[in-house]
Amino acid sequence: MMQFTQSSLNVGELATGQELSIPVYRVAAKDPSAPSVFVQANVHGAEVQGNAVIFQLMKQLERMDVRGEVTLLPLANPLGINQKSGEFTLGRFDPITGVNWNREYLEHSIDIPAFYQQHCHLDDVQLKQQFRLALLASCEVHLANPWGVTTGKRLAVTLQTLAHQADIVIDLHTGPKSCKHLYCPEYDRDSARFFSIPYSLIIPNDFGGAMDEAAFCPWWALVEHAASQGREMPVPVAAFTLELASQERIDMRDALVDAQGVLAYLSFRGVINEKVAPADMPRFGCLLKDYKKYHAPKGGLVEYLAQPGIPLKAGEPLANILRLDCYGTEDELTSLQLEQDCVPILHFASASVYQGTELYKLMTNVFEL
Amino acid sequence: MMQFTQSSLNVGELATGQELSIPVYRVAAKDPSAPSVFVQANVHGAEVQGNAVIFQLMKQLERMDVRGEVTLLPLANPLGINQKSGEFTLGRFDPITGVNWNREYLEHSIDIPAFYQQHCHLDDVQLKQQFRLALLASCEVHLANPWGVTTGKRLAVTLQTLAHQADIVIDLHTGPKSCKHLYCPEYDRDSARFFSIPYSLIIPNDFGGAMDEAAFCPWWALVEHAASQGREMPVPVAAFTLELASQERIDMRDALVDAQGVLAYLSFRGVINEKVAPADMPRFGCLLKDYKKYHAPKGGLVEYLAQPGIPLKAGEPLANILRLDCYGTEDELTSLQLEQDCVPILHFASASVYQGTELYKLMTNVFEL
Amino acid sequence: MMQFTQSSLNVGELATGQELSIPVYRVAAKDPSAPSVFVQANVHGAEVQGNAVIFQLMKQLERMDVRGEVTLLPLANPLGINQKSGEFTLGRFDPITGVNWNREYLEHSIDIPAFYQQHCHLDDVQLKQQFRLALLASCEVHLANPWGVTTGKRLAVTLQTLAHQADIVIDLHTGPKSCKHLYCPEYDRDSARFFSIPYSLIIPNDFGGAMDEAAFCPWWALVEHAASQGREMPVPVAAFTLELASQERIDMRDALVDAQGVLAYLSFRGVINEKVAPADMPRFGCLLKDYKKYHAPKGGLVEYLAQPGIPLKAGEPLANILRLDCYGTEDELTSLQLEQDCVPILHFASASVYQGTELYKLMTNVFEL
Amino acid sequence: MMQFTQSSLNVGELATGQELSIPVYRVAAKDPSAPSVFVQANVHGAEVQGNAVIFQLMKQLERMDVRGEVTLLPLANPLGINQKSGEFTLGRFDPITGVNWNREYLEHSIDIPAFYQQHCHLDDVQLKQQFRLALLASCEVHLANPWGVTTGKRLAVTLQTLAHQADIVIDLHTGPKSCKHLYCPEYDRDSARFFSIPYSLIIPNDFGGAMDEAAFCPWWALVEHAASQGREMPVPVAAFTLELASQERIDMRDALVDAQGVLAYLSFRGVINEKVAPADMPRFGCLLKDYKKYHAPKGGLVEYLAQPGIPLKAGEPLANILRLDCYGTEDELTSLQLEQDCVPILHFASASVYQGTELYKLMTNVFEL
Repeated sequence: MMQFTQSSLNVGELATGQELSIPVYRVAAKDPSAPSVFVQANVHGAEVQGNAVIFQLMKQLERMDVRGEVTLLPLANPLGINQKSGEFTLGRFDPITGVNWNREYLEHSIDIPAFYQQHCHLDDVQLKQQFRLALLASCEVHLANPWGVTTGKRLAVTLQTLAHQADIVIDLHTGPKSCKHLYCPEYDRDSARFFSIPYSLIIPNDFGGAMDEAAFCPWWALVEHAASQGREMPVPVAAFTLELASQERIDMRDALVDAQGVLAYLSFRGVINEKVAPADMPRFGCLLKDYKKYHAPKGGLVEYLAQPGIPLKAGEPLANILRLDCYGTEDELTSLQLEQDCVPILHFASASVYQGTELYKLMTNVFEL
Repeated sequence: MMQFTQSSLNVGELATGQELSIPVYRVAAKDPSAPSVFVQANVHGAEVQGNAVIFQLMKQLERMDVRGEVTLLPLANPLGINQKSGEFTLGRFDPITGVNWNREYLEHSIDIPAFYQQHCHLDDVQLKQQFRLALLASCEVHLANPWGVTTGKRLAVTLQTLAHQADIVIDLHTGPKSCKHLYCPEYDRDSARFFSIPYSLIIPNDFGGAMDEAAFCPWWALVEHAASQGREMPVPVAAFTLELASQERIDMRDALVDAQGVLAYLSFRGVINEKVAPADMPRFGCLLKDYKKYHAPKGGLVEYLAQPGIPLKAGEPLANILRLDCYGTEDELTSLQLEQDCVPILHFASASVYQGTELYKLMTNVFEL
Repeated sequence: MMQFTQSSLNVGELATGQELSIPVYRVAAKDPSAPSVFVQANVHGAEVQGNAVIFQLMKQLERMDVRGEVTLLPLANPLGINQKSGEFTLGRFDPITGVNWNREYLEHSIDIPAFYQQHCHLDDVQLKQQFRLALLASCEVHLANPWGVTTGKRLAVTLQTLAHQADIVIDLHTGPKSCKHLYCPEYDRDSARFFSIPYSLIIPNDFGGAMDEAAFCPWWALVEHAASQGREMPVPVAAFTLELASQERIDMRDALVDAQGVLAYLSFRGVINEKVAPADMPRFGCLLKDYKKYHAPKGGLVEYLAQPGIPLKAGEPLANILRLDCYGTEDELTSLQLEQDCVPILHFASASVYQGTELYKLMTNVFEL
Repeated sequence: MMQFTQSSLNVGELATGQELSIPVYRVAAKDPSAPSVFVQANVHGAEVQGNAVIFQLMKQLERMDVRGEVTLLPLANPLGINQKSGEFTLGRFDPITGVNWNREYLEHSIDIPAFYQQHCHLDDVQLKQQFRLALLASCEVHLANPWGVTTGKRLAVTLQTLAHQADIVIDLHTGPKSCKHLYCPEYDRDSARFFSIPYSLIIPNDFGGAMDEAAFCPWWALVEHAASQGREMPVPVAAFTLELASQERIDMRDALVDAQGVLAYLSFRGVINEKVAPADMPRFGCLLKDYKKYHAPKGGLVEYLAQPGIPLKAGEPLANILRLDCYGTEDELTSLQLEQDCVPILHFASASVYQGTELYKLMTNVFEL
């Protein structure tokens, strides 16, 4: 039975001096030509289910013939995970600055045309290697800033340094109250059929600060530039964010389902020798521009009627807003509907909202994948 | 159709000067001999379902022949309800002091033997009236403290002043992830069969700061003292806390079920003229001393296996604690069991816990009511 | 004595249904050619001193001959101001999303070359009027989004709508532990000599989401485009952010000092008829690119040695980091220095820090204004 | 030069599995008859200055002839210290439950008459030894509760177990914005003249959950019971809480001043061989019942005028409350006064308050010590 080696990644220091560290599990490559994989979980503190998926993944991989290097980082944000406020985990943003932990990854300022001009004589493998070195150097420079880096940037860029060394990057998140969905770059939409996930968001090449974007955007830009210079090459790095249903939930059995989905993809990519078939299920897609946020038109108490993952026809009830201060008027109970068909993907975690709270995220113009 | 009158109760002032106020709905007594009722909801900010029950109660009462005065206060803690921290409502305690909003009610320092000696010549009705006046005077003195009162005390004692004017006090709460349960004073355990609630905690005459205790403890003490002096009288005030399943949830249909339970009790007490039968369901009880808190024996991620409201045999799995930092050791996944039969009533809201977090509350030595 | 009229601006609704509203004080223009003024304070909840400055400003203006319209909004963020967490005001960012309240203003997507081409035949006054209408229309469209807008966006864009109607926009903030400083757009650096503020940051035309930028960036862009087309015109709108020393502080006497500075500027601009001389004091500037953030190189307890506003030579002690867990080693007490001369402008509010916490903000390459 | 040994005390576990531990510095007793000392600091997360005092104390003790055992625990609440909310440390209460970290110590349920009856034949030294064992056994039983103990209870009772082993217990705290003051049990008021602290609260034998009370209350009760049985003995344990001015402040020089005060007391008690004279300064006292909390009579912005530690005559200005929403009315600026002479000891940390916020704590009926 294969064994993962365990090590520890230092990502910061608390006020008491306690080290912030992340457990790192790794198995080395048997076959240097097999892709390498980086999986992390729980960068948002309340989004714990990814850890269970990593656990099940390790249990499965132990029995498999693993060809490529696999690096797994559960509990990837110790500060965020341990930060409670009331009964819940306040782990979506840095408690001091408010910055979303998943918007801290580094946007490299590499001049891609200049880089390409300098390295275009190399073959694909060498070009990839040189570009990877450039990305790693950029991370290193950022972390060595003589004025220091913020707590969140240190965490993110340290994780990014590991991610840039892999060919496949998988970031495990969850929504608040959510069905499973996947963020998938447009160039890689065929890969969505391997994961055990019914809904995929097809995303363009815009950097917004998230890990998946940090992993694939520079490569995609490089490939597009090369194409503009007449050289065709596939994007050498694949990166996905898996949203594993709701936060504040551990479900070991469901974790196994998602671990199987990841294995199906790794099998397809040749990371493992075993054949793992993807789950047989319908899968749907939506362009990111058609992914809508619906905000509460008024403050009040919310009865969420539309269930995440269940298609909702135009005019069907989405939610009720109850207003006890308006009892006896027409505002006492407001029924909310939408004017177009959609699939609600997630809704807000709390049943009481301010005006403007993001109530639902919904896919519109959904298509079969 | 009967109409509730609406007024507004001032309970404080925010830093911007905005008034904290609570909507008050009231119908006057038709029959002065019918008991009067006070119902409040949402003193803990995240426990919103009681508002929906009040809403359904009003909709039902509108069509009924209401004999006794009914006073309803939804949204009874505007500061707590509007206090978010991350996606959830941080409404269990004062954000400044940490004091639980439901531990702020006033423990009166009335000398009951002296009061009784002075008033024992009165008949039961007059005695009740005098004691009520003493309770109200005690509240008034407390609120008029020349050094001021805390934010939480002002809220609580203002609510208490209204509650003391009623014969029946109902405080609507919820648990975190919870089945429905009722706090019922021992002297009133026969009343538990009216509410649509399967599990009742039978509580003794100990003041712990909660509304129900604030409402009944002084009366119970008075009645016990009278008994020690040879005069038997029933406890003139009934007070219950209803825990309406989980927090952060509005369910209008389920609110109707609980409104029916309240109406069944009010029907029995003659507050309404209509006959409303209680729901036909098994009901169980547990003494407060047998209500146990189970604390996490270690930190980690929790898979809650035992469902609130479903009896659990000794040795059956309660929960798993997943520890990704201990992968490969016997601590990677710890199964928790209890050594005795119980009914889990509620569990913690979050799936990640520190060592010592209250994981479950469980009834032991459960009996049929 | 002149009277301000008071009205109220609705900016949202809480979960209880309570309206979020801002008091608006206004005096109408006597002279339509005099510039109009918009002043707001306390968009960050803990930054209260601006309210005191508005108070003193009103007390002064009451006795003056005010020519231009003046609109004053104290307490401009009722949600942020009332949001406590522990003893302090958690008012820097939306407690739900983490978004900084001062990064929510709208970046207009007006196509300036197209606008200019369409309106270049107008004279300066008319051109200004048309552009203002375009900005207001853009705000209106944003607020009318059928999918709704976030709580923070509604607040910000509602404030922005008022600000766009003024020729002079003043946003009153404070730092954490801070000396007074001013954000001043490069084109307007001569105006810095009017305020009672020793240090000015000279900022370029980059929109970062703040109110001052929201107010001047589109105008500056318009003027630059006109210049590129051969038409010279001054930037018609002036906008400043005043940082009035430290947060969580009300000082009525010091507020009068800053009110005098604002009046000196308004006097210079002809908003008031009275001559108000600026305070006689040295004033210094620093380009935004030379404004440095120094992050804690390690976690620990911090003794802040360098005082805000007092120049610090290279090598002089900035702060100590105390590490009780390292007692007896060379890490027990670390003295921090910088390698270049600077003026510390502000430091972090708390004496205990994580690694990476922003310890100080410092001006380097400071010049006399 | 004497060396402290360092060890580590485990007090819990975070959700990531990270151990919560406290550094423990200790020097063994040279002279078994010399009293033993326990000093802890920073049980409230924002109250950091006690760590600096422990640091200076260690630096001084290194050079001294220490006779009794000295145990020092800085950073005594790692969970509270590392818990930020916004820029400040949210360290006054458990973020999940709201329970004040300094109200968690165990009230022993030892039947003192029964204990005394059983052990009254022993001499004072033996009696003390037996009672100490009883206290330690009580702690041990509490920690071994099969249903577990809360996070805060585990921390507190673990600290208490160490404290019960000492003859002198010193708990280092601070106020919010505060002058130095001391909590001193009535039986020990003569000891107040050793510390470098001008104001002392003389406290009775009532257990309220704090460390000092946990340390001395059972002993005081034992001694009083013995006295009632005709046996006079001094209270064998001394316990003090030192409030070292304001929270969120590290001042190494001032820490030395307070370390000298502690050394003066230890010198007097014979813990160290050196003579250390107490600071020559006036010292005042106040009975706990005369220590008043003044609550904000309205919400608003607060200008704190009375300085902690400076006596305030009746009728002199205490604070102003500024209400911008009331501009132009008599409520725009309210001056607050008290009707009796007092010494303000501390005030609230924030400049904006709800109605009812505790604005000031003040000593009345102050006397010279």
